[in-house]
Amino acid sequence: MDEHHIGKRQSLSQQMTLNRDREFIQQLKADYCQILLRYFNNDNTVKQQIERFINVAFDAKVPVPQIIEIHMELIDEFSKQLKLEGRNDEVLLDYRLTLIDILAHLCEIYRTSIS
Amino acid sequence: MDEHHIGKRQSLSQQMTLNRDREFIQQLKADYCQILLRYFNNDNTVKQQIERFINVAFDAKVPVPQIIEIHMELIDEFSKQLKLEGRNDEVLLDYRLTLIDILAHLCEIYRTSIS
Repeated sequence: MDEHHIGKRQSLSQQMTLNRDREFIQQLKADYCQILLRYFNNDNTVKQQIERFINVAFDAKVPVPQIIEIHMELIDEFSKQLKLEGRNDEVLLDYRLTLIDILAHLCEIYRTSIS
Repeated sequence: MDEHHIGKRQSLSQQMTLNRDREFIQQLKADYCQILLRYFNNDNTVKQQIERFINVAFDAKVPVPQIIEIHMELIDEFSKQLKLEGRNDEVLLDYRLTLIDILAHLCEIYRTSIS
C-alpha cells in the first residue's frame, strides 16, 4: 500500500474517532439538558440521571472544562429562548446549583478513586 | 504499661490528631474566606490564593463535602453580617461562581492525576 493510501486510511480513522467523540459529547449534552430541565423537581428520576451522567463522565475521563462548556452552551440556549418569549432569564442563575452538585460529586469520585 | 495507660495514650494521640485536623480545616476556611472576599477583584493575588488553596486541598485529599461545608458556613456568616447591616444578601449568590471555579479546577487536577 502506498503512502497516499496509508495517509487516506489514517485520516479516515481520525475522522471516525472525531465523529465518535462528537456524538459522545452531543449525547452527554442531551443528558445534561434533561438534568437541568428536571433538576428542581428533585425526584428520583433526576437523581438517577445525575448518577448516570457522573459515571459516564468519570468512565470516559471527560475533561472538566468540557463539562463547563456543555453547561454554558445550554444556559445560553435557554437564555435565548426565554428572551424570545419576552421572559426574564435571571431564573437561569439557579442552575449554577446543578453544576455545583455535579462537579462536587464527580470530584469526590475522582478523589476517592485515588486515595 | 497497663491497659488503662495504653487507652489513655491512645485517646491523647487521637485528641492531638483531632486538634490538628480542626486547625487544618480552620486554616483552610480562613484561606477560602480571603478568596471569597477578593474573588471579584480578579487580580493576580486571588489567582495565586486559589491555586494554593486547590493544591493544599489536593495534597491533603480534603473530602469535597468538607469544602462545600466551608463555603456554606462562610456564606451563612456573610449573610448574617449583611442582614445586621440591613443590607440585601442576594449579592452572595454570585459567590457560587467562586465555588464552581474551585471545584472545577480541583476536579481537573484529580482527573489528570489518574489518567
